Amino acid sequence: MSKDKDALVEQVMGELLKKGISLKDKNQSNASGGFEMNDFLNSTSVVPEFVGTREIGDTIGMCIPSVDPTLLDQLHITKRYSVLGILSARSGAGPHIMAMDEAVKATNTEVIDIELPRDTKGGAGHGSLILIGGYDPSDVRSAINVALDNLSRTFGDVYNSAAGHLELQFTARASGACHMAFGAPEGKAYGLICGAPSGIGVVMADTAIKTAGVNVLSFASPAHGTSFSNEGMVHISGDSGAVRQAVMAGREVGLKLLAQLGEKPVNDFPSYIK
Amino acid sequence: MSKDKDALVEQVMGELLKKGISLKDKNQSNASGGFEMNDFLNSTSVVPEFVGTREIGDTIGMCIPSVDPTLLDQLHITKRYSVLGILSARSGAGPHIMAMDEAVKATNTEVIDIELPRDTKGGAGHGSLILIGGYDPSDVRSAINVALDNLSRTFGDVYNSAAGHLELQFTARASGACHMAFGAPEGKAYGLICGAPSGIGVVMADTAIKTAGVNVLSFASPAHGTSFSNEGMVHISGDSGAVRQAVMAGREVGLKLLAQLGEKPVNDFPSYIK
Amino acid sequence: MSKDKDALVEQVMGELLKKGISLKDKNQSNASGGFEMNDFLNSTSVVPEFVGTREIGDTIGMCIPSVDPTLLDQLHITKRYSVLGILSARSGAGPHIMAMDEAVKATNTEVIDIELPRDTKGGAGHGSLILIGGYDPSDVRSAINVALDNLSRTFGDVYNSAAGHLELQFTARASGACHMAFGAPEGKAYGLICGAPSGIGVVMADTAIKTAGVNVLSFASPAHGTSFSNEGMVHISGDSGAVRQAVMAGREVGLKLLAQLGEKPVNDFPSYIK
Repeated sequence: MSKDKDALVEQVMGELLKKGISLKDKNQSNASGGFEMNDFLNSTSVVPEFVGTREIGDTIGMCIPSVDPTLLDQLHITKRYSVLGILSARSGAGPHIMAMDEAVKATNTEVIDIELPRDTKGGAGHGSLILIGGYDPSDVRSAINVALDNLSRTFGDVYNSAAGHLELQFTARASGACHMAFGAPEGKAYGLICGAPSGIGVVMADTAIKTAGVNVLSFASPAHGTSFSNEGMVHISGDSGAVRQAVMAGREVGLKLLAQLGEKPVNDFPSYIK
Repeated sequence: MSKDKDALVEQVMGELLKKGISLKDKNQSNASGGFEMNDFLNSTSVVPEFVGTREIGDTIGMCIPSVDPTLLDQLHITKRYSVLGILSARSGAGPHIMAMDEAVKATNTEVIDIELPRDTKGGAGHGSLILIGGYDPSDVRSAINVALDNLSRTFGDVYNSAAGHLELQFTARASGACHMAFGAPEGKAYGLICGAPSGIGVVMADTAIKTAGVNVLSFASPAHGTSFSNEGMVHISGDSGAVRQAVMAGREVGLKLLAQLGEKPVNDFPSYIK
Repeated sequence: MSKDKDALVEQVMGELLKKGISLKDKNQSNASGGFEMNDFLNSTSVVPEFVGTREIGDTIGMCIPSVDPTLLDQLHITKRYSVLGILSARSGAGPHIMAMDEAVKATNTEVIDIELPRDTKGGAGHGSLILIGGYDPSDVRSAINVALDNLSRTFGDVYNSAAGHLELQFTARASGACHMAFGAPEGKAYGLICGAPSGIGVVMADTAIKTAGVNVLSFASPAHGTSFSNEGMVHISGDSGAVRQAVMAGREVGLKLLAQLGEKPVNDFPSYIK
């Protein structure tokens, strides 16, 4: 670069700094106290328990082929299995539960624990920790892969804006994950209608229930049925067509209300509830 | 723009990118996977339940003129009303509770639920979900509007810095919202003295209580009386002058302590406790 | 600055704004509604309760030489002391508990309360509020200073990335803080192995336990033994060499797994577990 250009860039940089924009050099972290993890890595090979990741929700899937029995004693699981599957994410509870619902339907595995951290990295909702058990490591790895692959579908009706989010889920036939997490009757249609901030979820629920004849399983709110997330969500069950219609009605009113708080909410993947 | 200028801007942009500043084109989100909600909106008109919003705290107010009875069964309310008012926010519990306290005093409505999500969008405190009931939709809408209008006052003694926040509240005559949320005796003066990180609230409380003869209703901390927020807060009651004096003493020591963690804390609206 | 240069900078600024970068003037906050706290400060002197701060974790240490008895009644402490020490932080529970463990060993003080807010400013973990009691203010201030000084050590094996974090802790001889917070037997070696998102902690725990013969005290996860944080962590006790070996094995697998979610995790201070 010529001297003149350098001077110019220097000047612009100086001007930006005055305006409050701080420039962080890409290599700065290492030079100023960032200690690399490499010291502790014997090799760069991935650990055998690793199954896969998805960028959406910072999701990681793993499988332990033979869990240590003393650890198994300390886990909060509904049934002991020595082969353990793990789906874990920073953002997203509904999407991961729905994805795992498909996975246990498709494989010889069972959901044995669902825990919902208050997370979403500063957002209004949950992350998730889902444990499944099986008899064969290949079954369990397969289930985790099915769940990971389903996330681009089950995130389809998650709509985000700076002020909050909406989540809609629907299945014509609920299985073990929906049953454990939401009390959904297995084999029947199930729908989730959720809005954040939580008050939006109250209006969405009211609209949804009035739209079609469905069974209201429960209503979760910051102090009841959530991990203090800022969500209002109704769980519904019943006839497949009615549940779907109710979910879509809740979505319509939710999108309008959340848009009142600023930007239009957008989804990262195409909507799947039509 | 001339070719030369274009080249120059290109060069500066390139330099910024090297320095780690990523430039996001305003229209990029739609082009790269952001699916617009418009598909699901039959019209752009606002839903009838909508009452209003305030930018502070990402606050939305709504009113359901006739709640579905099956939803009412699932809500956690102290009394059944068919007309429901909703005040919901991402950031702010005290300010919304104090604002609603004024609203129920001014209208024929009643607070029937207060829930505090752990929120503030990555901050140290709570958001809020407040439900009120009434017999007449116009009463309830009016109450929600009174609450929304009070927020610029009740946020007046909320002080934020990058490291934490302080909140001070005072009323000469507590009503239903303060009673339900904080155990404040109705009709008497009530004060809230809160600091985050929570240890600051301990010292603020000690100073406040020593300053004037007040009744200590309770002390809330991360594991007791909060939704795991990082706040220490004391609730006090008693003679109006003493409560006000105690609140102001707590504020003074809190501002000094929080400032030790970096920047000076600032409020978004003028202080109202004088 | 010459006219030409001004025009150029203006042009670049305009271009940046079009690209979505907003420039905030450093002095803007005061001019546009930021009310300075100075109005309420009688002086700029620090309050006598203040002991010190550390930038890491937004940590503040304080000491109340003679707590108000009515406040003492409302605190959730295991034993009444009139001299109160306070260690409070936005980010970090393990590091502060381990640091306080050293502090109570080194001074005539006792841990009387440990509370873990769900915090880390949008991260996956906890902040902390730790109260200690003593008979002499100088003992308590000394303990708080010892704890503050230990943080650069106890943060040494906290590794962060955009997707999550890992935390490893080890002591050859656990004291009162580890006992109260984690159920560690006093006087014996104790180790903490933690990963976030929480599923990573499950695999770290399994690997650690299989590596060496240790006692598994408990496993904490989002719904059990945490404040809904997105962490999986195992608490172990036993022979010093075995505990250390287990912790290091957990660290190795954790670093590999978390790195699968994007960047390599880095620590802010040098690792102390070797």
